[in-house]
Amino acid sequence: MKNLGYYNGKIGEIEEISIPMTDRAFYFGDGVYDAVMCRNNIPYLLCEHINRLYENCHLLGITVPKTKEELSHIIKELCKRVDGNEKFVYFHVSRGSGIRDHAFCEGNGNLCIMIKPQNVGDVYEKVDLCTTNDYRYGYCNIKTLNLLPSVLAAQLSKDNKCEEAIFIRDGYVTECSHSNVSILKNGELITAPADRHILPGVTRAHLIKKAKEAGILVREEKYTEKELFEADEILISSSSKMIKSAKRLNGKSVGGKDFKNLTYLQCAIYSDYLTNTTIK
Amino acid sequence: MKNLGYYNGKIGEIEEISIPMTDRAFYFGDGVYDAVMCRNNIPYLLCEHINRLYENCHLLGITVPKTKEELSHIIKELCKRVDGNEKFVYFHVSRGSGIRDHAFCEGNGNLCIMIKPQNVGDVYEKVDLCTTNDYRYGYCNIKTLNLLPSVLAAQLSKDNKCEEAIFIRDGYVTECSHSNVSILKNGELITAPADRHILPGVTRAHLIKKAKEAGILVREEKYTEKELFEADEILISSSSKMIKSAKRLNGKSVGGKDFKNLTYLQCAIYSDYLTNTTIK
Repeated sequence: MKNLGYYNGKIGEIEEISIPMTDRAFYFGDGVYDAVMCRNNIPYLLCEHINRLYENCHLLGITVPKTKEELSHIIKELCKRVDGNEKFVYFHVSRGSGIRDHAFCEGNGNLCIMIKPQNVGDVYEKVDLCTTNDYRYGYCNIKTLNLLPSVLAAQLSKDNKCEEAIFIRDGYVTECSHSNVSILKNGELITAPADRHILPGVTRAHLIKKAKEAGILVREEKYTEKELFEADEILISSSSKMIKSAKRLNGKSVGGKDFKNLTYLQCAIYSDYLTNTTIK
Repeated sequence: MKNLGYYNGKIGEIEEISIPMTDRAFYFGDGVYDAVMCRNNIPYLLCEHINRLYENCHLLGITVPKTKEELSHIIKELCKRVDGNEKFVYFHVSRGSGIRDHAFCEGNGNLCIMIKPQNVGDVYEKVDLCTTNDYRYGYCNIKTLNLLPSVLAAQLSKDNKCEEAIFIRDGYVTECSHSNVSILKNGELITAPADRHILPGVTRAHLIKKAKEAGILVREEKYTEKELFEADEILISSSSKMIKSAKRLNGKSVGGKDFKNLTYLQCAIYSDYLTNTTIK
């Protein structure tokens, strides 16, 4: 299949699958999502992403209609049906269905999965970034379907021919529209703390781990937009693109001053992906 | 029909209508909504609500697939098909459809309408309210489908056997999960300013107008949670419930000290609804 949509057991191409109008994702964005890359039909770090989905659902009182093992099995089986070597696997659980009423509905959540061919691409390619005000809500630690501010930021980024838009809240860097962001400065890795203003990204966590293993001091601390411009390197991290570094921010040259640590971290993350998605 | 769902021309009972998985409302909450009461098949203040929908869509770069006149006509015709004398009419426009990608899709938006029997009920009944932290995002002036914080607040309110939950941002009152809130104090009407932290409600605007006509001084100013407790009356306003007053807030007795102005305002709003939805 060229791509695959799944909804509560129904399977077909994404463009063919329909969902009921009563799904609370449709009119409240009342749900939680996650996503992984898949290579050689091996979804990368699936267990960590599924754990996060369940934790997020628990925080919001949403009941996932499958066990973790069942969800993992479904995703692995569905991946096999989609053409291509590398794929992007998106999955979400909404609270359930019912006639529109703000208070929670009864019953289990609805499970939706979308799989499409997508490559990680060249992780060493340098990208342009831009900044925008972070007017998002105060539960950014939960990966919900309330994504309109991220949509607007991503479009701003596209309009500016950039790879990503970095959110600035009260002068401090939080994260990007669908990536985390960190900086290298004087041999240290600095990244916003995992409070309720950022999503604790799986790739961000791996980046921190790989940095520590290499003896790079990691500071999970607030840092400013000015520090972005003065950073030795700016790194954006996501499950779909791994680690990319910036060459320009808001049209000004940035980074390019810590090739050694940057390349080490990019290589460490990317090689972990390749190693763990190779058929043994 | 017992209720009615409409999606891009397709009509049926709400539980029967399906929408494509590719609709951006489903996975991003990327859309705008509005709602009106309808009595005797006359949608109340429909023009004002449609104007707001178009303004909100314009702010977000969403193209409504119908003209204002067409949308008004469709809503009026659909209302006739639903059983009952009083109905709640919900309508939303999403940005459009496509394979999931944060940046905007091409083409027109998708139009969804849901109509169900619902009564305004007893506007003079006194209700219980509770407060909760306002962690919502910074575009609350736009009536979007990113409603998860309102869902959580509404459920908190239900758990506490209350009618509504009032959001408090940095110590100041903003609005409720799906209503505006105002207070009467020393013969004045005080309500949060229409900045980006509240939705400029149609009923709120009518409340202000009716107060001014009656010689009540109106102050659109920030006020605190403490002032709520000390208010002569607390008023919540919405298109579906008109004006209701509070008898308890977080379990403590409140209001009940300005019967004259409260009753005048409730009566003025409710009688306007009845007058304008009476068949001439």
